[in-house]
Amino acid sequence: MLLSLFNSTVLQHDFSLNPFIQSNPIIQNHFNRTKKVKNVIFLIGDGMGFSYTTGLRYFNHDSQKGIMNPTIFDQYFVGSQSTYSLDSESNITDSAAAGTALSTGFKTFNGAIGLNINKQAVPTVLEYAKFRGKSTGLVGTSQINHATLAAFAAHNESREQYNRIADNYLDERIDGKNKIDVMLGGGTSYFCRDDRNLIEEFVKNEYGYVTNLHELVTNKNKQLLGLFAPIELPKQIDRDPTIPSLSQMTIAALKRLKQNPNGFFLLVEGSQIDWAGHDNDIVGAMSEVKDFEAAFKEAIQFALGREDTIVIATADHSTGGMSIDRDGNHKWNPSVIKSITSTPFVIASRLHETKDLTTLKNYMHFPLQEEDLKNIQSTLEMGVENTRQTLIDIINHYSSTGWTTKGHTGEDVPIYAYGLNRHMFSGRMENSDIAKILFQIMD
Amino acid sequence: MLLSLFNSTVLQHDFSLNPFIQSNPIIQNHFNRTKKVKNVIFLIGDGMGFSYTTGLRYFNHDSQKGIMNPTIFDQYFVGSQSTYSLDSESNITDSAAAGTALSTGFKTFNGAIGLNINKQAVPTVLEYAKFRGKSTGLVGTSQINHATLAAFAAHNESREQYNRIADNYLDERIDGKNKIDVMLGGGTSYFCRDDRNLIEEFVKNEYGYVTNLHELVTNKNKQLLGLFAPIELPKQIDRDPTIPSLSQMTIAALKRLKQNPNGFFLLVEGSQIDWAGHDNDIVGAMSEVKDFEAAFKEAIQFALGREDTIVIATADHSTGGMSIDRDGNHKWNPSVIKSITSTPFVIASRLHETKDLTTLKNYMHFPLQEEDLKNIQSTLEMGVENTRQTLIDIINHYSSTGWTTKGHTGEDVPIYAYGLNRHMFSGRMENSDIAKILFQIMD
Repeated sequence: MLLSLFNSTVLQHDFSLNPFIQSNPIIQNHFNRTKKVKNVIFLIGDGMGFSYTTGLRYFNHDSQKGIMNPTIFDQYFVGSQSTYSLDSESNITDSAAAGTALSTGFKTFNGAIGLNINKQAVPTVLEYAKFRGKSTGLVGTSQINHATLAAFAAHNESREQYNRIADNYLDERIDGKNKIDVMLGGGTSYFCRDDRNLIEEFVKNEYGYVTNLHELVTNKNKQLLGLFAPIELPKQIDRDPTIPSLSQMTIAALKRLKQNPNGFFLLVEGSQIDWAGHDNDIVGAMSEVKDFEAAFKEAIQFALGREDTIVIATADHSTGGMSIDRDGNHKWNPSVIKSITSTPFVIASRLHETKDLTTLKNYMHFPLQEEDLKNIQSTLEMGVENTRQTLIDIINHYSSTGWTTKGHTGEDVPIYAYGLNRHMFSGRMENSDIAKILFQIMD
Repeated sequence: MLLSLFNSTVLQHDFSLNPFIQSNPIIQNHFNRTKKVKNVIFLIGDGMGFSYTTGLRYFNHDSQKGIMNPTIFDQYFVGSQSTYSLDSESNITDSAAAGTALSTGFKTFNGAIGLNINKQAVPTVLEYAKFRGKSTGLVGTSQINHATLAAFAAHNESREQYNRIADNYLDERIDGKNKIDVMLGGGTSYFCRDDRNLIEEFVKNEYGYVTNLHELVTNKNKQLLGLFAPIELPKQIDRDPTIPSLSQMTIAALKRLKQNPNGFFLLVEGSQIDWAGHDNDIVGAMSEVKDFEAAFKEAIQFALGREDTIVIATADHSTGGMSIDRDGNHKWNPSVIKSITSTPFVIASRLHETKDLTTLKNYMHFPLQEEDLKNIQSTLEMGVENTRQTLIDIINHYSSTGWTTKGHTGEDVPIYAYGLNRHMFSGRMENSDIAKILFQIMD
């Protein structure tokens, strides 16, 4: 079914009529003399708006004075995109609709996975890559059947249908071939279920299956399923060394995908930047942006010196209304964030195990006031969520980090690109334009 | 004194050593084959971060559904810049330090007007333009001796020295000539003082002097001082028709400056986007961004079809931690903002005159709840500031606009450009790089 769509739906993207492309002489020029790309590495920092990538620059900066070193992102900044979906109830996108716009070129309703506004399945750039004989991969730090990743490789009216989405990954085939060659992230609980064991089925389909860093590094299978947690991976700052980083998963995926002479499409998601944003947790946010930056660096490293690869990194939306500084302090303080060695989630859990405030000293290496300690103490008789929220509030206070929502916000998000045709991603565009350009430039 | 600096200090900007330019092949390429520009129109939306320009797109969008039309800005988006200053106390810039970075190429301490970090006067791009025989102009909606505008044409350790800065505009000469040919904005109280009447002095120097739109439009002088308010102009939404809009002032300035066969440098500031941000007033913010957008449109209109002009629009920083949506509503509501016909400042003043809540109906055309009316009523016995703040809170609530501070925030801000050498402003750069590029490309 999907196969037949490639000839109809993909061609519905009439690029010559796109006003953005018409109005942009650089892009128009590129369309006229496009050299097709063999390999696409598409990275999505979920929730990673401008405040997050600017925040990373402050965070990486050692002295808090003088000229700040550019981040890896900074060096490849080319454009920005508008994230809104076509939801009838909401003018702020969710990750499913934004993921679908980025994967298919169609803006759609919130919650939709790989469907257009009329609930019709539309082909994704990952599927198109497979259709063109390329290898494909999905790598993330959430469960690998979570919204953004799912939007590239499944079709469902609801992002909540985690089991059906996982089924899609195995059952939907392109030209008789498995749709996704490498899947790395979290989600054992969705793949090994009472009603179906997808892991066994993938293994029968000649996939390797790995569950920790050692197995990931030593495995030799060309097709690979790696599930490193029942649902999501711990955040990078909380991860034990048996669990791979996003860059280690990216390296493992590239090692396999690059063997295909027709090239590949790889999606890498920094899934939990958004989740930290939802929690208004700046420690988790910086942890996950750094993890994502390292994966982006690996992607750039792969593309450097080649003339057949495009690397694009962007966000699906921003989260939390995060601001660098708050309350008129005019002094954002990333040294407070740097001095904390676990997320407030882990610290709160440990505090509830020990019921002893001296535990804090193992995790938070900046001076707390008597009042802060009293506030934390008072939460130890309540649920762990109270302790967590109190820690988050204290960290936001001392770091001077502002937030306006536990949901998403509507501002445009950055696009970073390197490699062949990178300039096609210059300027301001709609999120859906990115998929349209990818369909056009993929060999 | 300043004159001698052009040969020393300007040359200290060694572009070949700038790591940004080295790492950016497009820019490097352009540096190698730069065609010099005759005319520069530099527009600064004070405080206009990405949330504001994205907000404008939502605000301009009629139906609140479907694909949004691009703003004028969207069509010319090329890059972003980092705004932080080198202040020893604060890692969030103020407008003076950011203005100085944008005007001189030197990041400096907060509050500094045209001085480097060692408190030495450094030449500005406006002064350099005059030195090269061009005409120059300063146009804004604040008093024209306010920080951002001042940073292009004065030198002072403190932005608070309004009278000294106004004196600078007349007293500092470049090559024996008046430094600024056209000055349009607010500020009569600083130019006509007990100790000195700068207006008379400018008129003696063959400047025309105008105080309202009619005089502005009919005046024939080549050099012109236009002061339309004692301090700042009313916000666009509150302006009566005798006071020119930012675009009308821009047109009047261009009409004069373009007569110089050597070209011109014009600075246009949307000064009060920032002030609305400080007040967390989304009605004022949208009013001022729209006023600024119209001025940018005029600048583009001037440059269209010419091959000698560069138009750049950017911000000096963002303000207020403004976010499109808050509190997890996922529904930003610009129709509430659009239905309000004056700023909360004007509405609050009227309410205090009438002491009658039915007055609200003349200004706020969306349904208020009984509780809102009660809250507003209760402030009528207090100061007008209480009423104003209550109105602001209500409007932010119904429009779902978030704010984290009444100060500035640190995230990168957009760069828009059109015309000759526009691509030199592509990518991510430091605010100070913009001035460095301008020094380099000006004829």
